[in-house]
Amino acid sequence: MKRMEMLKKLATDRGGKMILLVMDGLGGLPGPEGRTELEAAFKPNMDALAKRSELGLLEIVDTGVTPGSGPGHLSLFGYDPLEFSIGRGILEAMGVGALVGAGDICARGNFCTRDGDTIVDRRAGRIATEKSALVVEKLAGSIKEIDGVKVTLYPGKEHRFVVVFSGDGLSEDVSDADPQAEGVPMRLAQASTPLADKMAQVANSFIGKVADVLKGDSPANGCLLRGFSSAPDVPLMPDLYRIKPVAVASYPMYRGLAKLVGMSVVDAGEGLEELFNTVARVYDDYDYFYVHVKYTDSRGEDGDFGGKREVVERVDRLLPRLLDLSPDVLVITGDHSTPSLMSGHSWHPVPFLLSSDYVRRGLSASFGEGECATGSGGRIEAKKLLGLMLAHARRLEKFGA
Amino acid sequence: MKRMEMLKKLATDRGGKMILLVMDGLGGLPGPEGRTELEAAFKPNMDALAKRSELGLLEIVDTGVTPGSGPGHLSLFGYDPLEFSIGRGILEAMGVGALVGAGDICARGNFCTRDGDTIVDRRAGRIATEKSALVVEKLAGSIKEIDGVKVTLYPGKEHRFVVVFSGDGLSEDVSDADPQAEGVPMRLAQASTPLADKMAQVANSFIGKVADVLKGDSPANGCLLRGFSSAPDVPLMPDLYRIKPVAVASYPMYRGLAKLVGMSVVDAGEGLEELFNTVARVYDDYDYFYVHVKYTDSRGEDGDFGGKREVVERVDRLLPRLLDLSPDVLVITGDHSTPSLMSGHSWHPVPFLLSSDYVRRGLSASFGEGECATGSGGRIEAKKLLGLMLAHARRLEKFGA
Repeated sequence: MKRMEMLKKLATDRGGKMILLVMDGLGGLPGPEGRTELEAAFKPNMDALAKRSELGLLEIVDTGVTPGSGPGHLSLFGYDPLEFSIGRGILEAMGVGALVGAGDICARGNFCTRDGDTIVDRRAGRIATEKSALVVEKLAGSIKEIDGVKVTLYPGKEHRFVVVFSGDGLSEDVSDADPQAEGVPMRLAQASTPLADKMAQVANSFIGKVADVLKGDSPANGCLLRGFSSAPDVPLMPDLYRIKPVAVASYPMYRGLAKLVGMSVVDAGEGLEELFNTVARVYDDYDYFYVHVKYTDSRGEDGDFGGKREVVERVDRLLPRLLDLSPDVLVITGDHSTPSLMSGHSWHPVPFLLSSDYVRRGLSASFGEGECATGSGGRIEAKKLLGLMLAHARRLEKFGA
Repeated sequence: MKRMEMLKKLATDRGGKMILLVMDGLGGLPGPEGRTELEAAFKPNMDALAKRSELGLLEIVDTGVTPGSGPGHLSLFGYDPLEFSIGRGILEAMGVGALVGAGDICARGNFCTRDGDTIVDRRAGRIATEKSALVVEKLAGSIKEIDGVKVTLYPGKEHRFVVVFSGDGLSEDVSDADPQAEGVPMRLAQASTPLADKMAQVANSFIGKVADVLKGDSPANGCLLRGFSSAPDVPLMPDLYRIKPVAVASYPMYRGLAKLVGMSVVDAGEGLEELFNTVARVYDDYDYFYVHVKYTDSRGEDGDFGGKREVVERVDRLLPRLLDLSPDVLVITGDHSTPSLMSGHSWHPVPFLLSSDYVRRGLSASFGEGECATGSGGRIEAKKLLGLMLAHARRLEKFGA
């Protein structure tokens, strides 16, 4: 907490505008030609920017530790991911606009197809979002309360939904109610501490009631629940740093995370072009812009080296729309590495580029992992990036006389 | 404290001599030709030394945090600047030779010109040091005690003086009695905690008495008080590391800081040449030499790129006087960055050069921010430098069996 408190004391409400462009899972590993996805990409705009920027590497959680998306983003927003943790359930809940108060527990739901107690399809054939919303409506009409605990449902994308349990004596220390496989029996929620017994009972009772209400329906005739979590007590970015932050992101989880730390969230549409245009549209109203590009991570997860490279190239072509806004500080980085070689998140430190009028430039020829390893920005903990951005935006006072 | 305790256990009273040459505000930013002040300077001696030294960057307080001179120097002397803090008042008090005991509160004073309650000139026309000393003498004759609190005055340079309040129940939690502007009414000291009420009353009473005594004088007919602070409880360098440290510095604040951490302070005269000659004069009597060059910072604060570069060049011409002493360890660095581009302190990490018989040399061609970013010394916290110097001076035992 120390650094956060120090920055809070030093922060002023004057200074420049900052854009944080997060290319999800940006960090990579060398492909067949010895270059990473980022290094192999044709990206004249980023490379030109790199020549007049500070490059470096971000250590997201700790050396050798592979971050999930939650800790990854929390770090970028200035939070110590070992001190502040956020369950995936709460992230999705926020993303669909759910209200989660102190003491409430939320969970992510999947509609599934059951045959008696056997889970046949964990995603109910990925039913359409509209159809899923109707199922949620039907359930919401029948299940309002269980053992004195209020139940609120929110529809999500495709087969997904969010449920919020509100009542006394609930705990998030409950295992997922999900067998994680198909053709096997349902696995119910279990309390991992005695204090969580009530939550486990209510959750399993909810699952039973869902199966009752949907009996005879197809393909969605049951549900799974994962990621039980309570709303974390997180100090908010506007209060901490006297900034007006906004999230420009299309995916619910990232919008939810941003909301949780006190950012405004605007409608960013669906595609990359709309995403970048949205920044320009709301540029006058905020001073910190978190812009989230999902697809670098998606292609990395697919093990698609060329696909990930192409996402970088598409972002590069759109980069002038951000540069034209002349932000005082622009950072391009990721929330973790997703090397296509590994088809998943990894522990490798993440390249970053920081552009402002006050950088020690001239050490780097292009934007890539190799240049970042020897760049003038050094290797820093990701949780320190926000303070560095505030400094470059001239928003921090001097420490001590 | 952990590292400090470890070093204390490992420290021996045998070993080599160390010189720490602090060029105040040394770190810079690229100028018109893409090189920093340090990089642009013609400095054959430093560059030759760089080829057989370890180069690196010092993170003074924390990433993105701009250090004041106090925290900057404390770090270089091995103190965690977040754990140990020193008010500016106490620094100046030490610098003018004031004695500040436990429980005493000191403050920096400015003589000013008042017209009734309006502050006309916050510095009383920067009256000459000699004249200011006479005003202090006059006041000292009249104001000896206020409400049982003893008042002691010390003259400073030009319009500056230091006042020490000694008595029971005083606190440093008092706001500056200074409107920070001219042509506006005086702003009196205010207690920020109830425990500081007495100090605020005494301070404001002092300001009133000064105006009474100086009534009719010109231009100094009043005073402002800033930086109320008590003597901090700091472990001393000689006790911690079994060394005999000495400060060779011309400016009061730096001499004060050195005294506070247990260094001897010698008369270093006024100019650069005298400063360097002083090191040679006292070389046999000590084993750690803190040598402070102010003017790199001064020219940086002026926004004078060429002027700052020239100070580096002047120091380079004098460097052989230190090299001729054949110190076992020589470090050249700064207490923070002062890029002329910014005309003020900044958060950028500070270049350092460490020369000893035990360095991994040969990686760097010259002394500058770029070479330091990729040098063999790496990027380290400034508070660790002292331990590194002790190590190179062969003054530390092995840790563990």
